Amino acid sequence: MALKKKPVTGMKDIMPEEMEIREYCISVISKTYAEFGFQRIETPCVESIENLTSKSGGDNEKLIFKILKRGEKLRLDDVKSEADLVDGGLRYDLTVPLVRYYSNHENELPVPFKALQMGNVWRADRPQKGRYRQFMQCDIDIIGEPTNLAEIELILATTTTLGRLGFENFQIRINDRRILKAMAACSGFPEDRFDEVFISLDKMDKIGLDGVKKDLEEQGFPEKAIDTYAALFEGLEEADDKLAFLEDRLGGFIEEDVIPTLRETVETVEAAKQAQFRMVFDPTIVRGMSYYTGTIFEIAMPELGISAGGGGRYDGMVGKFTGKDVPACGFSIGFERIILLLMEQVFKVPGSARKKAYLLEKNLPSKQLLEAIRAAQKDRAAGNDVLVVRMNKNKKFQKQQLTEQGYESFEEFYASPRE
Amino acid sequence: MALKKKPVTGMKDIMPEEMEIREYCISVISKTYAEFGFQRIETPCVESIENLTSKSGGDNEKLIFKILKRGEKLRLDDVKSEADLVDGGLRYDLTVPLVRYYSNHENELPVPFKALQMGNVWRADRPQKGRYRQFMQCDIDIIGEPTNLAEIELILATTTTLGRLGFENFQIRINDRRILKAMAACSGFPEDRFDEVFISLDKMDKIGLDGVKKDLEEQGFPEKAIDTYAALFEGLEEADDKLAFLEDRLGGFIEEDVIPTLRETVETVEAAKQAQFRMVFDPTIVRGMSYYTGTIFEIAMPELGISAGGGGRYDGMVGKFTGKDVPACGFSIGFERIILLLMEQVFKVPGSARKKAYLLEKNLPSKQLLEAIRAAQKDRAAGNDVLVVRMNKNKKFQKQQLTEQGYESFEEFYASPRE
Repeated sequence: MALKKKPVTGMKDIMPEEMEIREYCISVISKTYAEFGFQRIETPCVESIENLTSKSGGDNEKLIFKILKRGEKLRLDDVKSEADLVDGGLRYDLTVPLVRYYSNHENELPVPFKALQMGNVWRADRPQKGRYRQFMQCDIDIIGEPTNLAEIELILATTTTLGRLGFENFQIRINDRRILKAMAACSGFPEDRFDEVFISLDKMDKIGLDGVKKDLEEQGFPEKAIDTYAALFEGLEEADDKLAFLEDRLGGFIEEDVIPTLRETVETVEAAKQAQFRMVFDPTIVRGMSYYTGTIFEIAMPELGISAGGGGRYDGMVGKFTGKDVPACGFSIGFERIILLLMEQVFKVPGSARKKAYLLEKNLPSKQLLEAIRAAQKDRAAGNDVLVVRMNKNKKFQKQQLTEQGYESFEEFYASPRE
Repeated sequence: MALKKKPVTGMKDIMPEEMEIREYCISVISKTYAEFGFQRIETPCVESIENLTSKSGGDNEKLIFKILKRGEKLRLDDVKSEADLVDGGLRYDLTVPLVRYYSNHENELPVPFKALQMGNVWRADRPQKGRYRQFMQCDIDIIGEPTNLAEIELILATTTTLGRLGFENFQIRINDRRILKAMAACSGFPEDRFDEVFISLDKMDKIGLDGVKKDLEEQGFPEKAIDTYAALFEGLEEADDKLAFLEDRLGGFIEEDVIPTLRETVETVEAAKQAQFRMVFDPTIVRGMSYYTGTIFEIAMPELGISAGGGGRYDGMVGKFTGKDVPACGFSIGFERIILLLMEQVFKVPGSARKKAYLLEKNLPSKQLLEAIRAAQKDRAAGNDVLVVRMNKNKKFQKQQLTEQGYESFEEFYASPRE
């Protein structure tokens, strides 16, 4: 079979220039999250197929790279379905593995457990520009903290990190699944069809309120419910204090503490924040994953028209493994988006060492070779990055190329002394 | 299906204590190799099945985790062999992907190209203590440097890194495949059976010279060849200058420059080294992979009775992709072994930040909550790691546990001022 030079479809080779930025971001992220008491952990990239197909991953479960059974377990003579062939798959997110990890090590871990994960995930998505089938996720999660201390710390940690990476004027848009539900309930939508309502609502930023109304009509929802729902959003649009407006309207449809707690979260973060961003309550934020049970949030970069991450509270998921519900809340940075933005800015990694190149004449005798290597070792011990290479015939061109690669000074070593 | 708490067979969850050491090692490795001009790159964890089964991976090719085709490409109605089912696999090393990467990006990369890769590889080995099916490899390679400048720089970079991680009194054992071949040739073994001879020789450290002789006899090699071969090793044992001894004996069986070049490599490294180790010429070093064409080397930690990495020159492999031979040489640190050794020493990561814990009384009013969060933010900006947690009923026990986790000081926040 012929060898293939290209990476597999939808995955990419990462060049040195991008790796430098990635390494820098990873170090800033890791250091900042450590300041907030998050501890780094890692799980295998491969998970049992049972865990990956347990309906915690939404549509991502359709995109799993599945791994063939090995040895005697693989029987090709009687294959009825894929399930006969596979026993594992590449993880499509870091949340399912985290919850499995927590269930497995519950007794060894502190309460609350604050985890930082940075690792690759895989999704067999249709390849498209800027989206890859292998990409890095960067998640922080707090397991075992029921109060909004979790939300506050997650948002402060994430935004401090983004600030240190040079981002400003972004927004954290926040909502609560229970507000979403109360708004749908008080409008008169049937509870078993809430998710359909939310799917329409989620399109608000693209199609506007009229579009959402039309979308709901097409799904055959009662006109009265649609009109009540729309009026709520129109009222919100005009309200000075959106949370107070909803508190007033949602009365019996929502637990008493939901809106005051959300207000406390927003106000505490606003008052204690270190980065340049705004907290924005946005009742149209939906977040796709059905496992969210409370607060949900997203990083919006309005100037760029993109979301650069998100998260929320998922108090029910640990119970699927342990049989005992444990509160949990997480925030994921869109690592690849961040890198893309920094690459577009031609981001210069700060504080790099001075780069020197030593050019050695070809066939340098042992003694001079040693002198050059010794000098390089000394230079390195002094904190410089030193590249030792053979001198090309066209030395001028070689130096030009090295300059383009960031080399700032050159030393030359010859077999016999030069005039 | 029931959810599984354990990681998949043979792979492991990494706990925070180990992750801290891993992160520290990665940062030392990355920084040190950058000083030597190595640039970090990354390839996808998934490679085309064609590349993984191209006979460059030796026995590792039997251990591939294979990935099922997806969508229409997967046809279950007529499965004749595994090959019908899979189109990719998880990489089993970083060398095959590097060579593919180099072939793909040759025109964008400097000459010589000095690459650093740190990433996971997967092998479906029989699970055993301390060996996992997913493990990290850490490779440096120089592509495009034909002279021993590559070997010298690779060995200096690797040993400087090991020194900075606290290792000393280790050895770099070095040999050359061409010496191996010349010794077999001048003893009279048939060239097409050299690999069998080397497999026996490779057992020398376990079974001794007598064992190797017996092993060769059992394979039916001529007595005369075995005796000549054994005499060479006996002579070497007694020789003051092993390389001079071989230069004398191997005369017409080896290219003239092989031994002087190896001597220059050994002596230059010895004279320019910064870590506490010895260069040892060891004619019994074989290295399993058949792709090696010249120098081969291993890190030996005799006190621990283990090898902690190795590498060598593989001038022929790039040509399998590009059709044009390019010289290449690499050195791989046994990252997992290094971590295991540091874990056993209960290694303390140097220069960590001061760890403080803030204990917040439950149901703290918004105002006091904000005060606590603000104080934490200030402390973090000053370079401390601050964990903010709710105070437990048994505060004393909570503090004990936090102390065990490395927290050095505590602050407490209450709803009303305390006496």
